[in-house]
Amino acid sequence: MSQVQELLSRELKVLLRGPDCKERRQNVRICIELHISSTPIHKRDLVVRMTDDSDPFFLYNLVISEDDFQSLKLQQGLLVDYTAFPQKFIDLLHQCLNEETKDAPRFLLQLSYSGLVLGSSPAQLDVVETNSFKHLTHLSLRFQPANDVEVKTYLATCLRCIKEEKCVLQQAMKKTEEDLSRQLICAQQ
Amino acid sequence: MSQVQELLSRELKVLLRGPDCKERRQNVRICIELHISSTPIHKRDLVVRMTDDSDPFFLYNLVISEDDFQSLKLQQGLLVDYTAFPQKFIDLLHQCLNEETKDAPRFLLQLSYSGLVLGSSPAQLDVVETNSFKHLTHLSLRFQPANDVEVKTYLATCLRCIKEEKCVLQQAMKKTEEDLSRQLICAQQ
Repeated sequence: MSQVQELLSRELKVLLRGPDCKERRQNVRICIELHISSTPIHKRDLVVRMTDDSDPFFLYNLVISEDDFQSLKLQQGLLVDYTAFPQKFIDLLHQCLNEETKDAPRFLLQLSYSGLVLGSSPAQLDVVETNSFKHLTHLSLRFQPANDVEVKTYLATCLRCIKEEKCVLQQAMKKTEEDLSRQLICAQQ
Repeated sequence: MSQVQELLSRELKVLLRGPDCKERRQNVRICIELHISSTPIHKRDLVVRMTDDSDPFFLYNLVISEDDFQSLKLQQGLLVDYTAFPQKFIDLLHQCLNEETKDAPRFLLQLSYSGLVLGSSPAQLDVVETNSFKHLTHLSLRFQPANDVEVKTYLATCLRCIKEEKCVLQQAMKKTEEDLSRQLICAQQ
């Protein structure tokens, strides 16, 4: 048995930094999910996904197991445990979100990549606070670009979801039409 | 410049024949497109695609260029030329469609594959007429299963189309609601 719990799915502005040091802003959807499986062993994975609503082939994945988190915690001097981490990460993203429209945001998401094009090489997502003195990196996560099989699986999931949404919308449309037409006939009588 | 002209997109019943000789019926969507490019050289390709509305990973492609058609014509003793072929093929498919609900259809689409699972190996689509004397194969087309890159490109196209359809539906829903509400207010006054 495995269970997926969506904790966040949100479009956020990131500052893209390529190998040429040129910077540009781009919207990236960040999705955070908790994958819990109970068989064969009880296992929890935090899955972070970066996608682009306007580019179906843009897909970065990061899976953080409890063991991965221990290394991350040690490397980056984090003070929270694995269960508290997702909410802490979401809080940081919300802080970036709140500052998105500002000219000089205090909290900023920065996405750095080394390859020629974004999507073909690993990328690093940093949550950076800028105060009057310096840049402080609150969190730094390293993502792998998805391969073709992962992209096609992701697209198939998107397609299934949007088909369902379209179906719900069609039913709602039918119901609205029927309800309002009925009311109209009553009112006209 | 290249141009795509959709000639047919239709769900049809096919008789699946695997290597174990077991037969089963399945719905397959057959899509026929004419791809015309004018640069660098004028070129026409007939693209036939088999997909399954319920399985996003099912994708078979066949591209028939004018040269390919000459071999096909020779091999199968066809009497039509390249420009007339698509309509002839569509007519055959419609004949199968008309016989779909019959217990002993005279025209039948047959899809044979040799691999363990359909989708992993080449497959052959035959339009077969069965009369009281024998089975007559009117047309036989050999399809290659799509690779991961082709599947993800196909899924991205599906996703773009369905997003557009959803958007149109949302606008129609809004307009219907507004129109009927306005009429209702008028009628109630």
